[in-house]
Amino acid sequence: MAMRKNGSSPDGSTGDMPPEEFRAAGREAVDWVAEYLAEVEKYPVLAQVRPGQLRGALPDAAPEQGEPMEQILDDFREVVLPGVTHWNHPSFHGYFAVTGSGPGILGELLTAALNVNAMVWRSSPAGTELEEHTLDWLRDLLGLPEAFEGVINDTASHSSLYALAAAREEAYPEAREVGLAGSPRGRIYASREAHSSIEKAALTLGLGREGVRKVEADDQFRMNPEALREALEEDRSRGIRPVAVVATVGTTSTSSADPVAELAEVAEEWGLWLHVDCAYAGASAMVPELRVHFRGWERADSVVFNPHKWLFTPVDCSVLYCRRPEALERAFSLTPEYLRTREQGTARNLMDYGVALGRRFRALKLWFVLRYFGAEGIRSRIREHVRLARLFAEWVEEDPDWELVAPVPFSTVVFRYASPELDGEEQDPANEELLEKVNGTGEAFLSHTRLRGRISLRLSIGNLRTREKHLTRTWELLRRSATEVVGQTASRLG
Amino acid sequence: MAMRKNGSSPDGSTGDMPPEEFRAAGREAVDWVAEYLAEVEKYPVLAQVRPGQLRGALPDAAPEQGEPMEQILDDFREVVLPGVTHWNHPSFHGYFAVTGSGPGILGELLTAALNVNAMVWRSSPAGTELEEHTLDWLRDLLGLPEAFEGVINDTASHSSLYALAAAREEAYPEAREVGLAGSPRGRIYASREAHSSIEKAALTLGLGREGVRKVEADDQFRMNPEALREALEEDRSRGIRPVAVVATVGTTSTSSADPVAELAEVAEEWGLWLHVDCAYAGASAMVPELRVHFRGWERADSVVFNPHKWLFTPVDCSVLYCRRPEALERAFSLTPEYLRTREQGTARNLMDYGVALGRRFRALKLWFVLRYFGAEGIRSRIREHVRLARLFAEWVEEDPDWELVAPVPFSTVVFRYASPELDGEEQDPANEELLEKVNGTGEAFLSHTRLRGRISLRLSIGNLRTREKHLTRTWELLRRSATEVVGQTASRLG
Repeated sequence: MAMRKNGSSPDGSTGDMPPEEFRAAGREAVDWVAEYLAEVEKYPVLAQVRPGQLRGALPDAAPEQGEPMEQILDDFREVVLPGVTHWNHPSFHGYFAVTGSGPGILGELLTAALNVNAMVWRSSPAGTELEEHTLDWLRDLLGLPEAFEGVINDTASHSSLYALAAAREEAYPEAREVGLAGSPRGRIYASREAHSSIEKAALTLGLGREGVRKVEADDQFRMNPEALREALEEDRSRGIRPVAVVATVGTTSTSSADPVAELAEVAEEWGLWLHVDCAYAGASAMVPELRVHFRGWERADSVVFNPHKWLFTPVDCSVLYCRRPEALERAFSLTPEYLRTREQGTARNLMDYGVALGRRFRALKLWFVLRYFGAEGIRSRIREHVRLARLFAEWVEEDPDWELVAPVPFSTVVFRYASPELDGEEQDPANEELLEKVNGTGEAFLSHTRLRGRISLRLSIGNLRTREKHLTRTWELLRRSATEVVGQTASRLG
Repeated sequence: MAMRKNGSSPDGSTGDMPPEEFRAAGREAVDWVAEYLAEVEKYPVLAQVRPGQLRGALPDAAPEQGEPMEQILDDFREVVLPGVTHWNHPSFHGYFAVTGSGPGILGELLTAALNVNAMVWRSSPAGTELEEHTLDWLRDLLGLPEAFEGVINDTASHSSLYALAAAREEAYPEAREVGLAGSPRGRIYASREAHSSIEKAALTLGLGREGVRKVEADDQFRMNPEALREALEEDRSRGIRPVAVVATVGTTSTSSADPVAELAEVAEEWGLWLHVDCAYAGASAMVPELRVHFRGWERADSVVFNPHKWLFTPVDCSVLYCRRPEALERAFSLTPEYLRTREQGTARNLMDYGVALGRRFRALKLWFVLRYFGAEGIRSRIREHVRLARLFAEWVEEDPDWELVAPVPFSTVVFRYASPELDGEEQDPANEELLEKVNGTGEAFLSHTRLRGRISLRLSIGNLRTREKHLTRTWELLRRSATEVVGQTASRLG
C-alpha cells in the first residue's frame, strides 16, 4: 500500500476510511485475531517489559499526516503486543480469569460499527430492548425472581456505587435535595473480605471511609451474621444511621460466600437495603448444584454480576439487577429538555438508572454469547472450571509442603507454600519470591492476597482454553520454584 | 453450516469458538460492516419501530443448546437492525452527531480480542502506557500545558463525577474519613446551560440538587462571571461552602462557550477548583482558529473531553485531563492487598483515578484514529463540519419564516420555525410537530431543546459521511414539513 495521506488525499476527501480499505484491513485484523486466539500460548502470559519501555518506543508527537492502516497494524503487533499481559492465555490465573469469547468479540465488532448511544429509548430502541430482554433471559437462568429488573453498566464498581446510591436515597430521603450535610453519619456494613469497590462507593457517596464498617468473618471468610447484628446495635447506640448491608458471594481474596439468607434476615429486621456482590461468581448460579451458595439472594434489593468475568463476555459488561428500580430512578433520574422524548412513560430510558448518560450497546455481545453457547453449554463450561479448580486443590492438599488456605466453592484456589523447612517468618518472602519466579517464566500468571496476615497465592480459572495439562505444568512450575527458593534461603542461612 | 450444538459438540468440547469458525464468521461480519458503512443511507435514520416491537420478536427464554453463529448473525440483521437508530447515517443530526470511524472500529475489534483489564500497570502494561502516551499526544494537539495528565473513562458523566469528587476532596479534606455529615452545605457553580451530568454528580457526591447553583447566562447563553461572583458572595453570607466552578465550552443546548478566562479569574480569587466540560467541543481546540473559544482553559484544574463525540472514535471514550492528579488520587486511591504490585511507585495504576476498577483497553482505538487521520486530517474534517454548520445557519437566517436562536461557534445550529403566519402560542407545537414529521420520514434526524421557554430545533454535524447535499435535503424536508404544519393549523383554525 502506498503512503496515502488519509488526512489530505488527492480528492480532498474529508470522509471516513473508504469501504474497500475497511474490508481489507478488517479481514487482516480478523485473520490476526483467529491466529492469536489459536496460538496465544506462544506469548508470555505476563508481559515481560519494564515500566516505560512501550512509551520509549513511541514517537513524542502524533503524526501530522495520516498513516496507512497497514503500518498501524504492524506497529500494533510489534510495539503494543509485547506490552500486553495475555488474559486469553490458558495459564492466566491472576485476579479473576476471564474469556472474551469468539461470539463476544464479534458482538463488540458490530457494536463498534453501529456506534449507537442508547441513553434514551429512541436513540436506539434495539439498544434498550435487547438489553432488557437479554437481562430477563439471564435473570431466569440465574433463578432470580421476576421482580428483578436489570441494567448493564461498565464495571461492578459502578454497579455497586449505583446500588448503594439507591440505598442512601432510601436512608436519607432528604439528601436528593439538600445533600448529606447536617444529617447524622451513615454506614454500610460489609464483611472484611468485601471488595474495595464498596469502600470506593462510600467515599464517592460522601459517607467516607468510616462509612463502611467491616464486619468480622468466620474461619472460612464468610461474614458472621451475629457480628453484623452487634455492629448494628453498637452503631445505633452511637447515633449512626445504617444505610445498607453488602453480602458477597465469591469474595476477591478467597471466593468465599457470605450466608446471604441469614444476612437478609438481619437486613429485613433492620429495614435495610441488601446489596449482593457476586461480580465473579454470579454466572455459577446457572448451575443447579452451585446455586446453594446463593441461597437467600432472592431477598436482596440489588445484585451485581459481571458477565465479563465468568460468562465469556469481553470487558466491559456488568449487570445490576434491582428489585426496587424506582429507588435507583429516584437517586438518579433528571431529564433535561434536550433528552425529553415522546416515549417518556411508555418506554424505559436506561440513562435514569445510574450516573453514565452515554450507553454503549453492550447487550449485543451478551446476547451473542448466550445464544452461541446456549444455557447447557455455559453450565458445562462452568462445571469444568470448578472441576479443574478442585483437582488443583487436591494436588495442593496432598503435598505436605503446601497448604490450602481456604475452601474452594467455585473456580479459585487459595494456597501457600508452607514447607516445614522454612520457619514462620521465612514463609511470606518465600511465597512472594516463588510467585515472581513463576510469573517471570511467562508460562503462567497467578496473583496473591493476604489472609490472616500472611501472603497467599491465588489461582483462578475462567478461561475457556484452560485444560488439565496447563494446570499440571503450572503446579510443576510452582513446586520447582519453591524448591529453588528454599535452596536459596538455605544457602543464605548456611 | 450444520446445526452444531456449541454447548455439546461431539468431542465434548468445553472450549471457545474454534479458530476456523471465528475466521469465517469474522470475515462475514467485517464484510457486512463494510457494506453497512457504505450503504447506511438506505436505512431510516430514526428507527421506525414501536416500543416493545423488538422484544415481541424474540423468544421468551435463552436457548438451552447453542446455536450456529450464522443464524445469530441473520437474526442480528433481521430482528435487531430495524430497531437501530443509525448514528452513522450522514443525516443523523440529533444530540451531538458522532462517527465511529473505520480505524476506531478496528481498534475496538482488537481491544475485544485482547480482552485485557488494565486496572494496574502489570495487568497490561500496554493498556496503561498507550493510554498515557496517546493522551499526551492529544493534550499537545489541544494546546493544553504539560501539567495536565490524562485518563480515559467511559463517559463524560463519570469524568465530571470524578473531577468533582476531587474538588469535594479539596473543599472537605475531612470527608475522605468521616463523610459529609456534620459539615456545612457545599455547592458547585455552573451555568444554567451546563449539562445535567453536573447535577447528577452533585446528587451522587452527597451534595444534593441544591448542591448545584445555576448561574445566569448572557443573551448568548454564556455564564456571566459577575453573576458567579454575586452568587458566591451571597452563598458565603449564608454559610454555604463553595466546592467548584464548572465552565462549559460547547453547551448541550446551543454549543455556547462560557468565558473560561474570566471564570478562571473568579475561581482563583476564591481558591476554587475549576472544571471545564468540553465533552463535545474539545476536539475543535486542535484547530487554531477555533481555539479562541477555549481561552483560559489552561488555568483549569480539570478538563473533560470525549473523543467519542467529535473525534471519530467509537463510544465509549471520555478523557479526563487533570492538572492536580494527586487530588484525584486522594479522592479515590485504595489499594487492597490483592491489587498491590511490585511496580507500586514506579508505574501509574490507572484504577487510582476514579471509581471504576475494571479498565478496558480504550486507548487502542484512539491511537488508531489519531494515526490514521493524522492531526492535519482531523483538523480539515472538523473545519468542514464547522463550514457546513455555518452554511446551514445562513440558509436559516436568510429565510424570513425561520430564525437562528443562538450563535454557531462550532458545528451545532439551533433554530426554529417562526413564521409570521403563526401567532406566538402556535409556534411551540408547530416546531414539535414539524420535527416529528421530519424524523418520521426516516431521511433525517434532529433533536430539540427549550431556550428562553421556547422549543427550538438542534442540528448537529459530526459524522464524516455528511455532505452539503445531505443538508440541502434536510433543509428542504424542514421547510416542506413546516408548510404542511402551517397548512394544518390554518385549516384547523379556518
